[in-house]
Parts: sequence; structure tokens; C-alpha cells
Amino acid sequence: LNLPALSFRALAGLPEIEPAMRLAPLIATALRQQGLRIQASDALLVCQKIVSKADGRFVRLDSITASARALELAARCGKDPRLVELVLQESSAVLRCVKDVLIVRHRLGFVVANAGIDQSNVPGSTERVLLLPRDPDLSAARLRAELAEEIGCSPIVIITDSFGRPWRQGVCGTAIGAAGIAALLDRRGERDRSGRPLQVTQVAVADALAAAAALQMGEAAEGTPVVLATGLSSSWGRSEGRAQDLIRPLQEDLFQ
Amino acid sequence: LNLPALSFRALAGLPEIEPAMRLAPLIATALRQQGLRIQASDALLVCQKIVSKADGRFVRLDSITASARALELAARCGKDPRLVELVLQESSAVLRCVKDVLIVRHRLGFVVANAGIDQSNVPGSTERVLLLPRDPDLSAARLRAELAEEIGCSPIVIITDSFGRPWRQGVCGTAIGAAGIAALLDRRGERDRSGRPLQVTQVAVADALAAAAALQMGEAAEGTPVVLATGLSSSWGRSEGRAQDLIRPLQEDLFQ
Repeated sequence: LNLPALSFRALAGLPEIEPAMRLAPLIATALRQQGLRIQASDALLVCQKIVSKADGRFVRLDSITASARALELAARCGKDPRLVELVLQESSAVLRCVKDVLIVRHRLGFVVANAGIDQSNVPGSTERVLLLPRDPDLSAARLRAELAEEIGCSPIVIITDSFGRPWRQGVCGTAIGAAGIAALLDRRGERDRSGRPLQVTQVAVADALAAAAALQMGEAAEGTPVVLATGLSSSWGRSEGRAQDLIRPLQEDLFQ
Repeated sequence: LNLPALSFRALAGLPEIEPAMRLAPLIATALRQQGLRIQASDALLVCQKIVSKADGRFVRLDSITASARALELAARCGKDPRLVELVLQESSAVLRCVKDVLIVRHRLGFVVANAGIDQSNVPGSTERVLLLPRDPDLSAARLRAELAEEIGCSPIVIITDSFGRPWRQGVCGTAIGAAGIAALLDRRGERDRSGRPLQVTQVAVADALAAAAALQMGEAAEGTPVVLATGLSSSWGRSEGRAQDLIRPLQEDLFQ
């Protein structure tokens, strides 16, 4: 009688990730050590930070010279001009710049504060920051292929980050890369119980999975950057998309 | 060694909800029939629609006369003027009105299309629509108290709806009512693994739980409007908030 549960379990025992480390063998080892089986219909949700770290996306702020535009924006938002310069280099447009807040459209299309550049959990110099992965959908597809070699099946892979939202408080996990899943599930043509066409026809499946997984990752001392999700609907894996599908096209943006 | 899993399981066997039905006994029966135990640290996530239906929040469109303002907006967005009139009555501000899109600030504070008024899954006349609950935080608190009488403990209750997002495609489950949980978890004062203050200090816990639960609820024939979530962190229940806490104050809104 019971319907299947959708479950999220963080993997324990991953080491601190350093540039050039390969994530797939580390994840496979952690799964094995915890006796966790994984199927192709399961998902591994991976915090952006460890993908960026493995890809060596660190930048030393003392290697950056702020442009005139960065200096001007930094004066408005009160942030380090070198950080603002990096934000500009990572972005296609500045949407808002006020005291303590710098919101941009990242060159990958997301609207995000500080271009997703991370200053926390970066061990070593406080002068070092971490950029988002260069192409998170590609990183997800690569990790998926590498995992297949390690564990014998190709699980869904979702790369997550924590984003703010314009009208709501608090951050929420969001999918910035995905492979093996309909990140944006298209339900056009389906009908509700009364036989009417569904009002809601597109579901942000990868974002919803990222949101719950991010709760399990934690942000502080208990940081566990990989979460295994089981019990996913088989319909979500039937057509494959990318996290890029979740980005609203610019011409449909009503709130720039 | 294994970390606890955060799990979401839809309840089977709830009847179609009609006005004046009491949800707590029906949920308690469904839990019992499925042999599901529930603890005070667990959460029941309840789709807004059944709360609204039980509260009798149906409106017949043929009972509504469109105002001049509704007629003007309806002409712009191409929606039924009587629906637009109801949207206006439910809202404090119209943020965007273009072809097929009417986005408002609901009087409860959320920014949402069509004031959250639902035209699908409303059995009977196609002329009948369903408004959001009048006070979803209060509905959650009441349901929590009624559940305590039925099942002997006070679980967390979250009332969910599916909202669109300005810069992202697809809908995502969102918390519009909550009781017994820090809907917005405040982590100010905590430090990351390198000892720095956390960059992210507020986490939209109730929204993240709503997002995953909404995946289990389904939107179509398989509709299962109540989801049991287990494995929640004990820290989330330690301080209690409301879903209203998740709404960004108007004076901090940069994207009106």
C-alpha cells in the first residue's frame, strides 16, 4: 500500500577537496564504506564548492586589479573592489548594486548575488575566493560518466548551489548543473483528476531535489557536500535535460 | 556510520476533500492504514488545495462582477475579467500584467501569479475557482493542534503551494503556512570549517521541505496532497516560526 519514499542521505567521510582531486573515486569509496547501493535511477547531488575546488577554480584576490567600473560599483555596495572585478568578469549584466548587495546575471544565465563567488569554506588564505564551475552541466555529465566507471551504473548527477530569491528570505538549494534527468519536467498534455489540462505544466524537478539535498549538506562544521537521493520517479529520468533548461530566457524576463 | 536520511512519503487513500471536512482525522486514518508512525520531530506537508477546500474557499465566477480596473487588466493579460477581479480582491499590488501573465503581491505578502487562485482540480463546474487559505500560518497551527488530539503528538505542519520564480523556469513547491518549525532558520553566529562567520546565515528550511514534498504530491491523476517527512534535523524544530518569516520585507525588495 505504501508509496515509495523520496530520500536524501548525506555521504560521510569525504576528504577536504583540493585542486586536481578526482571526485568520482572518492564518492564511490564513500558509498562503499557506508554500504550504500546506488542504481541508475538514483541521484547524487554534489555541492558546487567541491566541483569548483576539484577544478581548481580558486582565485587569489591579490592577483586581481580592479577596473574603473569595479571601483565604482564597489563604492556603491561596500565590497572589496577586487571581488567586484571578479564578479564583473563572471557576469553578463549587473542587475542591482546597493549597500551590501551586488546581484548579477552570471554569464551562465543564473541571477545570483556576487556571481556565486564563494569566500567561505576556502581553507588557507582569506585572500582566496572560489568561482563557480566553468560549465556545471558539463561537469555533471563528466562526473556521471566517471561514476559509471567506478560503480557500474550511471546515476543522475545534480550540481547544487545555495541561491537567494528576490521576494523571499533565506537561501534555498538550486540546481546549476544536471545530467541524466529532466531538470525541467514538461507535463504539457497531461490532465488533472477532473480531466482538465494541467495549469502547471513545467516542474523544476532538479531545483526541488537540490533544495532538499542542500538541507542535508549543511553549511558549517558538519559540511557533507554529497547527498544520495533515492526513490525518484522513473518519469524524471526518461527524458534528459540540463540545468540550463531551468533558466528563464531573457526575452521572457519581466523582472530585470 | 550512516547519517540519517531525510525522507518524503506521500499518504495514499485520502478522499477528495469537500468543504467542512476535517483534515486531521482523515490524515490520522491514512497514517494508521499505512502503518506509518509519526513523531513530534516529523513534518506533515499539506497541499494548499485541500486546506482551501476544507475551508470552503471556493468562489463561483458567475457570482463576481468585474470592476473597471479588472476589465482593463483582463484586456491586457487575456484572462477572464471575473478571475482578474478576484485576483485584485486577494492582492495588495499588481506587479506585472502582460499577455497570459498576471503577477501580484498577495495580501499575505507572497509574490505569485493569479494571487494563487486555482482553476484546476476543482471538481464540478468549470466556473468554480479556489482561493488560497485565508491565513495559512493559522491553518497550519490549527491543523497541528487537531493532529495532536488524533495522534498524540504535535508534528510540524507545512502548507505548500507551487510557485513560479522570476528568473527560473518551472514551478517549485513553496511554504505558505508553517507551524512547529523554524521556517526560516537563522544561523547567524555560526562559523564554517575554517572558523570564518558563515556567509549564508538564513536558510529557507520550510521552502526546501515544501519543494521536495511537492514532487511527491504530483499535480495530476496521481494526486496525493499530504506528504510525511521524516529525518528532519532536531535544530529546525528548536525555535518556531511562521511561513510569513520567509517573505522579504517590502522595504528590502529590489525587484518590485
